[in-house]
Amino acid sequence: MTEIELIAEALEELSDYVRVRYADRVNIAVSAKGNPNDVLTEVDVAVQERFAARLRETFPDDLLVGEEGELARIPDAPDARCWIIDPIDGTQNFVRSLYPAFGISVAFARGGRVVAGGVALPVTHDLFLAERGVGATRNGRPLAVSQVATLANARVEVDFGTPGAREEVVRYAAGVIEHAGQLRCHCAAVIGLCSIATGDMDAYVHARLHPWDFAAALLIAEEAGARSSRFDGAPLALFEDNLGILVTNGRFHDEMLAVIGESSR
Amino acid sequence: MTEIELIAEALEELSDYVRVRYADRVNIAVSAKGNPNDVLTEVDVAVQERFAARLRETFPDDLLVGEEGELARIPDAPDARCWIIDPIDGTQNFVRSLYPAFGISVAFARGGRVVAGGVALPVTHDLFLAERGVGATRNGRPLAVSQVATLANARVEVDFGTPGAREEVVRYAAGVIEHAGQLRCHCAAVIGLCSIATGDMDAYVHARLHPWDFAAALLIAEEAGARSSRFDGAPLALFEDNLGILVTNGRFHDEMLAVIGESSR
Repeated sequence: MTEIELIAEALEELSDYVRVRYADRVNIAVSAKGNPNDVLTEVDVAVQERFAARLRETFPDDLLVGEEGELARIPDAPDARCWIIDPIDGTQNFVRSLYPAFGISVAFARGGRVVAGGVALPVTHDLFLAERGVGATRNGRPLAVSQVATLANARVEVDFGTPGAREEVVRYAAGVIEHAGQLRCHCAAVIGLCSIATGDMDAYVHARLHPWDFAAALLIAEEAGARSSRFDGAPLALFEDNLGILVTNGRFHDEMLAVIGESSR
Repeated sequence: MTEIELIAEALEELSDYVRVRYADRVNIAVSAKGNPNDVLTEVDVAVQERFAARLRETFPDDLLVGEEGELARIPDAPDARCWIIDPIDGTQNFVRSLYPAFGISVAFARGGRVVAGGVALPVTHDLFLAERGVGATRNGRPLAVSQVATLANARVEVDFGTPGAREEVVRYAAGVIEHAGQLRCHCAAVIGLCSIATGDMDAYVHARLHPWDFAAALLIAEEAGARSSRFDGAPLALFEDNLGILVTNGRFHDEMLAVIGESSR
């Protein structure tokens, strides 16, 4: 079994499980991770455990990094074969929201670089897959970014995060908030980044993300033609503390870097 | 036929029509109303015309105000029997978006006050209805707002609107953006306001809205228990130029007014 085959098969199964739990979500146990704006459900934990069990069967020697519990740490050997899971990205939207803006994210990295990734949106039965250099698909159909060429005409997802990270976003994104044609905020990195891959969104801005938030979805966006960088223009690194995540369709990335640079002065 | 019966029947029919057109949306003609961030589709026009024809049959003497074309004006006799339609609120999301965050809005006002209203979300088959003093329902089930009691724990929808209105929102909402537990922006008033009615969102902030943007959805929110005001705390008036629309679950409305007052100084 190849890595992308494992990703696809695991996501199909996990997506079926999450869809059933979501339909009965009033009965799901929710706890706050010391903060009512950062919640954890029993479903997040179950999804991560199910994937861990499957990985042990298929690639028992590979590392696993995940959002929940003891897996939430940067590996000691970051260049080793490593899997990265976010069992539910957008847990707040899973718990309550008119739209099911959450997804399951699984990525595989080698040499500290993601080479295969997938995102499942359980409720809409969407499966996004990408392999480095091969392209990205949604339910088997190839994806391509939008052609919008200026910030003034662009739809930008600004992820305001939780209050602790808010000040940083507002500071760096002030010019983007002022000048973007349209703003959206779904507060789920997989939704913002997969929307760039489908051409539904033109850019995505977040102050800081954990590896599991963007590992798979960034590859999907990039393989659909997106460009990414930190706010200072340097490349994003999977296991480093990146200040600022900027992802665009590639047509006005430099314009956005200039606007962000202006705001941060 | 009563007014609420007309609203329910018309919305069911219009919702079926829009759902079919949405499924084939790549083939819909879109024009920009002099601004790429404010678009109009042939479906907006068709929905408004269909409702106008139906209204003429049922209540031929009533006024009709609507978002599109010559109907987009405040009536000369604002206290007369008056219907208010937004054929598609969230047209940008109708044209492109991973989630169908748009709806059809129909309200009936008497004496300048909305007394019955409905919002249909075609893709998810949702029908929200409300009558003043009677309550609000979603697909027949009664609705009630959330119980979140502080801004720090609240999920707030901030509608950043188009660039022309952006400066005003950012100025008045600066404190809300800084202190809210979570922020969302779907850029469709019907989604923000119906989400308060369902308890999925705790507050909604917009700098300026047209009557058709909020006529029906505000009644739905209020009948589910929401409180509303302008940014200065005065009541919202249907046909006036309200500076600031603040709608909350009622538990922290005064706190939000204070935070907005602080920002606007």
